[in-house]
Amino acid sequence: MPHHDGTMVSTQTPALGETVTVFVRVPAGTPARRVHVRSTPDGEPHFTPAAVDRTTPDATWWRAEVVVRNPVTNYRFLVDDRWLNGLGVAAHDVPDDLDFRLVAHDPPPAWSRDAVVYEIFPDRFARSGRDLPPAPDWAVPCDWDTPVDTGQALVQRQFYGGDLDGIAGRLDHLERLGVNTVYLTPIFPARSNHRYDAAAFDRIDPLLGGDAALARLAAAVHARGWRLIGDVTTNHTGDAHPWFTAAVSDVEASERAMYYFDESGDYESWTGVKTLPKLNWASPVLRERLAEVVRAWRRPPYGLDGWRVDVANMTGRCGADAYTHEVAAHLRAAAGDGLFVAEHAHDHTGDLDRDGWQGTMNYAGFLRPLWTWLRGDDLDLPLFLGVPGGVPRRDGVAALATVRAFAARVSWRALTHSWTLLGSHDTARVRTVVGDPYRQEVAAGLLMTMPGTPMVFAGDEIGLRGVDGEDSRTPMPWQRTGEWDHATFARYRELVALRRDTPALRHGGLRWVHADADALAFVRETEGESVLVLARRATGEPVRLTGVPGGANVYGGAADLRPDAAGAVTLPADGPSFQVWRS
Amino acid sequence: MPHHDGTMVSTQTPALGETVTVFVRVPAGTPARRVHVRSTPDGEPHFTPAAVDRTTPDATWWRAEVVVRNPVTNYRFLVDDRWLNGLGVAAHDVPDDLDFRLVAHDPPPAWSRDAVVYEIFPDRFARSGRDLPPAPDWAVPCDWDTPVDTGQALVQRQFYGGDLDGIAGRLDHLERLGVNTVYLTPIFPARSNHRYDAAAFDRIDPLLGGDAALARLAAAVHARGWRLIGDVTTNHTGDAHPWFTAAVSDVEASERAMYYFDESGDYESWTGVKTLPKLNWASPVLRERLAEVVRAWRRPPYGLDGWRVDVANMTGRCGADAYTHEVAAHLRAAAGDGLFVAEHAHDHTGDLDRDGWQGTMNYAGFLRPLWTWLRGDDLDLPLFLGVPGGVPRRDGVAALATVRAFAARVSWRALTHSWTLLGSHDTARVRTVVGDPYRQEVAAGLLMTMPGTPMVFAGDEIGLRGVDGEDSRTPMPWQRTGEWDHATFARYRELVALRRDTPALRHGGLRWVHADADALAFVRETEGESVLVLARRATGEPVRLTGVPGGANVYGGAADLRPDAAGAVTLPADGPSFQVWRS
Repeated sequence: MPHHDGTMVSTQTPALGETVTVFVRVPAGTPARRVHVRSTPDGEPHFTPAAVDRTTPDATWWRAEVVVRNPVTNYRFLVDDRWLNGLGVAAHDVPDDLDFRLVAHDPPPAWSRDAVVYEIFPDRFARSGRDLPPAPDWAVPCDWDTPVDTGQALVQRQFYGGDLDGIAGRLDHLERLGVNTVYLTPIFPARSNHRYDAAAFDRIDPLLGGDAALARLAAAVHARGWRLIGDVTTNHTGDAHPWFTAAVSDVEASERAMYYFDESGDYESWTGVKTLPKLNWASPVLRERLAEVVRAWRRPPYGLDGWRVDVANMTGRCGADAYTHEVAAHLRAAAGDGLFVAEHAHDHTGDLDRDGWQGTMNYAGFLRPLWTWLRGDDLDLPLFLGVPGGVPRRDGVAALATVRAFAARVSWRALTHSWTLLGSHDTARVRTVVGDPYRQEVAAGLLMTMPGTPMVFAGDEIGLRGVDGEDSRTPMPWQRTGEWDHATFARYRELVALRRDTPALRHGGLRWVHADADALAFVRETEGESVLVLARRATGEPVRLTGVPGGANVYGGAADLRPDAAGAVTLPADGPSFQVWRS
Repeated sequence: MPHHDGTMVSTQTPALGETVTVFVRVPAGTPARRVHVRSTPDGEPHFTPAAVDRTTPDATWWRAEVVVRNPVTNYRFLVDDRWLNGLGVAAHDVPDDLDFRLVAHDPPPAWSRDAVVYEIFPDRFARSGRDLPPAPDWAVPCDWDTPVDTGQALVQRQFYGGDLDGIAGRLDHLERLGVNTVYLTPIFPARSNHRYDAAAFDRIDPLLGGDAALARLAAAVHARGWRLIGDVTTNHTGDAHPWFTAAVSDVEASERAMYYFDESGDYESWTGVKTLPKLNWASPVLRERLAEVVRAWRRPPYGLDGWRVDVANMTGRCGADAYTHEVAAHLRAAAGDGLFVAEHAHDHTGDLDRDGWQGTMNYAGFLRPLWTWLRGDDLDLPLFLGVPGGVPRRDGVAALATVRAFAARVSWRALTHSWTLLGSHDTARVRTVVGDPYRQEVAAGLLMTMPGTPMVFAGDEIGLRGVDGEDSRTPMPWQRTGEWDHATFARYRELVALRRDTPALRHGGLRWVHADADALAFVRETEGESVLVLARRATGEPVRLTGVPGGANVYGGAADLRPDAAGAVTLPADGPSFQVWRS
């Protein structure tokens, strides 16, 4: 099939008005007579003929030009009478929303293309042993070994006392794993262990060590050449936040309009949870105050390198109010050259490729399809991140269809700057979902080789388990390293290193070359390097492929791949297995 | 397959906050264990279980409730572990943009659901013989019999002298055909025969009879109980328009900011045509003036019933400027309760279901797929409405994929209020495209039976030909009725009458029941009526279907359909053929 992806362009950071050269690879077996590129400057289609750029034994490369007339310039190819867009080749006429995209908005920070993110839930990661304030009234102090209680009575109140200096003291663990970006869930004062109910934005929770502890942690992270990412709630505050208490107590207060009060004094809240009053982004006061929060913590001595934005999917949306895109642009501007990634656990595609969120946590286009493909045979979770019926069992073809459906609706830039993940503090643990270390290796392999910024939820790398977001907030068992799954840690470490040492896995294109029920295979390519990846959830038939590179096995232990007389390679049939070849 | 369409709801005009009951039909052969409806109020998914509403021999109907929380509320169904959205049933996880939609914005006028539109290009329809001003300097007067010259020198200058009283004098022809809505391409003064280069918006072209002639035509149209639709250019004016001449001659004029001038005095124009300077919708003066145009001609004695908006796809789009949706909402508000339909010859889906354009001219989701399916075997047009390579030859499966792809991305309301068409003053004639009267009958049959507001370009009904938009602007040959294709006229007339007399064809749902290379079949259903439609471009295999109604043949002459012992009906194999059965 003819192929294009967002790397096959002369620049991924075009300026408005710039002319970008785009390339299409047409396999030798199915030559094209005529290739055009189509864009829709100012809403009207425009076709430009492509010319042959070069011919290799495998393929003909065609070259054409696209003018970046609009901040988001969509384009697709007409190859004879078939279309080539983000979803692949179509033999019927297609809408524009699946087109490839060139984005002229300011790009995300360059360092983020090479980031591997490690997510830490501060209450549960590590204690420093420093002298900290006593547990507050809402908290139920727990020993580090106390099991997490997911019942309503305790779930937000169990308080393990992890703190920021505790994190700073455990960075060697992250170094061994190989990650280079630390993402902290909220660290502002609150009245819960998760701290998504902010009671202030102008100081760090003293229970975590306060502002000074953040400065120390930031210095320690930056000293290793790493990055530190915060978590800001833009959809709501906690009901203990002074903005809200002012709003409740005085209908004339400027804070009143920062929330959604009705005439009875009732107010909108996050999915009806009254401790989380919803912010009203019509308020200019709110806009300025939250922008200042975003700006303030990026300054020294904290120097956060960016933000993960909580409940970005709901932020600015309330009935007829639709401020989401304005808010995203406004806050991103405040974030300057920082990373700015949105939480969106559902269909994020309509909210990216604007001048706001640079990427998302890619639940919809990565975690969900991988879970459905790799789920354990006897998994019994009643809900699939909110979807009734639990995690459905889907084959590799269906999983790939979902991966492609979401990838096709955003730019390559937004795709690669979105965080791929296998789990988070809001989900079951990947090990519980897939059921065994072998499939977890397949999952982690895909995490480290597919486009996107990999995010590891602390503890996944040692095989921790959890049936849902609450249960997964396991205190990191530093005191019981004998119970760690050291083999899984070694796999994660090896995979992170593979990504670090293989430019094509970080910056290369993506060409899917095979999908069946039990196997997925793709190629990641740069000009100088080609990597073939095989993910198998189970043993199946050997897969014979033409038009893909062979190469030396660099992960997984299979034999090197050499093309046979017909130029084909045959991939191994054993599974579960994750294999990578580089040529 | 489980089925839902936008008619299977308790109301198609919900208010914000209203709870709407939605239904799913699950065929008896493939029962469901569990059905939920999913919506995403304020950006967060919400699932509501469905209950069995009733069971018929054919199917189980499930019922669920959706709260219209947002002005456009999307929803889809989870039927066991498969999704049902606007594209049909998916066995993998899908994005939200293909969801069904409930739209709480003000609905289009009720009369438009029953409209059949007749498009008239005034210079070429009919002369009244009244005393009109002499042809102006730009015009090359032509006899009514002069062939249209599509060469650059004459194409915009040939002046045949059709006028508004000429139209009024030919309404009996429209009455015979059965249409009830007259759409006039522009009638403002201009310097071309097509008048898309408006030189004024405050008066009707004296060459057409002036304001008084429009009042007479409006009275005549309204006297028959019909509607009259105007054509307003919102993307550009002509360079003779006083707004533009003021802007050119005085950089301080308030009109200067209504266009896009650069520092050298050059200006943006429609696809580079300098006689059509592009309007800059950042200008508040422009917003007010054009809103007044929209308002003014809707008042008596003209009382236009609505507008077709020219080049709506480009309106408000210019580089980084993206005012399209604002402009659409602004002008629609000015149009009051009038019809407000956008020209968009490409992917219109992103511009509908807002509070602006109520529908589009559905080239992308109707004309184009039908042309590709029904095109003549020896058709030789170099461009397919701008697409290189001419009209591709596609089978029925591909054509249906396109129809569904575009339909799935808009609400049922926007789909049914969009104008279906087989050709216009901007395209080749359908007769030329399909090549013979038999396939034209199939095309016209689909025009009158598929969801949407049918639009007939004057002359199609008598078999006129034309290879492109210019060539198709044929003077209506009133003087040579002997050369009319009277059989085609009779077919059109019969099909319009069928639509008029069959509520399901105007207000019914749509369920596709078959597609192969040469045949398409669907059912249109209301609670009281079921209509089965078969369109065949060629003879093929008989199609045997279960779960569809039989019924009496009401168009096309085939035998009535009675289910066999297994409950199946067998559709005839002869083609080209268009058949309709009603039960």
